Amino acid sequence: MDGLSPPQAGLLERFRAGDPRALSRAISLVEDERPGFQHFLHVALSGGPSARRLGLTGPPGAGKSTLVAALAGAYRGAGERVGVVAVDPTSPFTGGALLGDRIRMNDFATDPGTFIRSMATRGSLGGLATSSREVVDLMDAFGFDRILVETVGVGQTELEITGAADTVVVVLVPESGDGIQAMKAGLMEIGDVFVVNKADRAGADRLVGEVRTALHLREGEALRNVPAHPVAVFGSGGPAPAGRPTGGGAPGDAPPSAPARGWEIPVLKTVAQTGEGLELLLDAVARHRAHLADSGELEARRRARAARRVRDVVERELRRLAWDSGPVRDRLETGLDRVGRGEATPYSLAAEVVRDLLGSGPR
Amino acid sequence: MDGLSPPQAGLLERFRAGDPRALSRAISLVEDERPGFQHFLHVALSGGPSARRLGLTGPPGAGKSTLVAALAGAYRGAGERVGVVAVDPTSPFTGGALLGDRIRMNDFATDPGTFIRSMATRGSLGGLATSSREVVDLMDAFGFDRILVETVGVGQTELEITGAADTVVVVLVPESGDGIQAMKAGLMEIGDVFVVNKADRAGADRLVGEVRTALHLREGEALRNVPAHPVAVFGSGGPAPAGRPTGGGAPGDAPPSAPARGWEIPVLKTVAQTGEGLELLLDAVARHRAHLADSGELEARRRARAARRVRDVVERELRRLAWDSGPVRDRLETGLDRVGRGEATPYSLAAEVVRDLLGSGPR
Repeated sequence: MDGLSPPQAGLLERFRAGDPRALSRAISLVEDERPGFQHFLHVALSGGPSARRLGLTGPPGAGKSTLVAALAGAYRGAGERVGVVAVDPTSPFTGGALLGDRIRMNDFATDPGTFIRSMATRGSLGGLATSSREVVDLMDAFGFDRILVETVGVGQTELEITGAADTVVVVLVPESGDGIQAMKAGLMEIGDVFVVNKADRAGADRLVGEVRTALHLREGEALRNVPAHPVAVFGSGGPAPAGRPTGGGAPGDAPPSAPARGWEIPVLKTVAQTGEGLELLLDAVARHRAHLADSGELEARRRARAARRVRDVVERELRRLAWDSGPVRDRLETGLDRVGRGEATPYSLAAEVVRDLLGSGPR
Repeated sequence: MDGLSPPQAGLLERFRAGDPRALSRAISLVEDERPGFQHFLHVALSGGPSARRLGLTGPPGAGKSTLVAALAGAYRGAGERVGVVAVDPTSPFTGGALLGDRIRMNDFATDPGTFIRSMATRGSLGGLATSSREVVDLMDAFGFDRILVETVGVGQTELEITGAADTVVVVLVPESGDGIQAMKAGLMEIGDVFVVNKADRAGADRLVGEVRTALHLREGEALRNVPAHPVAVFGSGGPAPAGRPTGGGAPGDAPPSAPARGWEIPVLKTVAQTGEGLELLLDAVARHRAHLADSGELEARRRARAARRVRDVVERELRRLAWDSGPVRDRLETGLDRVGRGEATPYSLAAEVVRDLLGSGPR
């Protein structure tokens, strides 16, 4: 890798001097994948992670933004510098409503110790989870003590983003419906702390009970199935499973934040609007952090995150090389004519493109 | 590409003979990405597409399954062989409820002229849209006259799956809320026909009006912004836009079914439960198909689909080559140690991996 371009070197200097406008510009550089952004990240992130990273996810309307605002206020009150990354999936049917929540964070707009960045998943085809995690890394490198990552748990992309955090808080509300049902579908694997928010509503205690039951069921299952090291790092346990290259077989697929053993997952009740239960949540997060550090799990999670990042960056780079290459584009144009005439299929054409790219193949 | 393995050659023979169990097995082969599945697809799909493909999407609870069942019944009644692919996104918060709908399709379970396949998006990291489209292609090659693809429009993946269809029907219900809001977020670009289902409920006419307004707004915008050929095929208009390799710049990103010019998008009312409005919908679908064929748009859409498929297959193959390679895995393991010691970053490590894979780089 060569040096940074002069403008990016200047940006990095201002970034390192703590200029929040430089942070904003660095984030845009990464979000837009402008030329040189990967090298900028390489240089900017060379110090490794140091912030305490807290992810919050849950269904739309669970009050995550209010909870994030309450947590941000508490950490600011304790003298910490706080960064917030809020990822809004503007899916066709939830779009506007979710973004409306953002307004609550405006209380912090004039506080120089707080930095808030909203990102939208709309229109992204797979790159969003990666660039969201890179934005979290940038905030970490910028020097925030605490980073809060808020995502709506409505899809795989959103769940993946929680992989940027050390501690993941799953926020549910009594209206989320059957807790076990919700658990079945992916949140159980990622939550280090569960919160039933809006706990002044009917059904809160029932949901707490259901979540606890589901967690115990899972624990029994985990004892039977999970290998000694729950985080898979590049097939160190042997060859990668064959036949599912884009799915379970690729490195880094395991949730980087698979709950640590020896940690009893708390299920708490909060009313974010009034601050009820907030102290308990702050305490649970602090205890989880201590547990991560003491058990060596923090290092394991950071290593898994690095592994996942390498994978993502490699795939992004391979895609770029494939589609920015003039000869490849030429071959595709003529190849599609052949497909249209029935002389080729997309599969034989794809094989030609891969041969073009790799030549004699990987060594 | 070499020949098929003996078991897969046998499977292809039974597939071509019309054995529905062979279709089921071929679908599993593709869904599970078992060894040789891409070559199987290459051979099985060599005849190109011929079925009439109808995609239906919309919010959970819009009655899509009931509508699909009604349409399947109507096409069967007209003597057509009908295949149905239903993609259920088991997102953490909608999981069980959506799958419940499937039971309605059981009416067809004993009809040999109908074939129904459900797929779940749960746990997929980007490969699902591709394999769903490959399943649709398999059904096409198997010889169905009509293929109905039902997806819940809750995320990018689900919207992408509609790209397998020639005609996309967007199904809304009065409860979907503000039509313009829904339109803003992605459905407007993919719908060839809009249906307000459950039209016996309050607000149906208002929603029809809102959708029409949104479509007219969009039409004005399209006249200003859209190039003469709305479907981008591998940057034939010049070099790909720089800097967004994983996003807007890659080929095939444009919705393969961007509404055709010269087609007035109908906004219909149905009550799927009673069959009310079904004739109008059947007629609209038939007219759209005729329009596609007459305008040359059908060929343009098929070409765009092929382009997208090549892109997907190339990226899948590059990922597989990257992560199944022993030397790459070794480099990663030692490289992650260096990242942990602060001697490398994920970005420099990723660059090493790409160099390993490509050698002197693409020619």
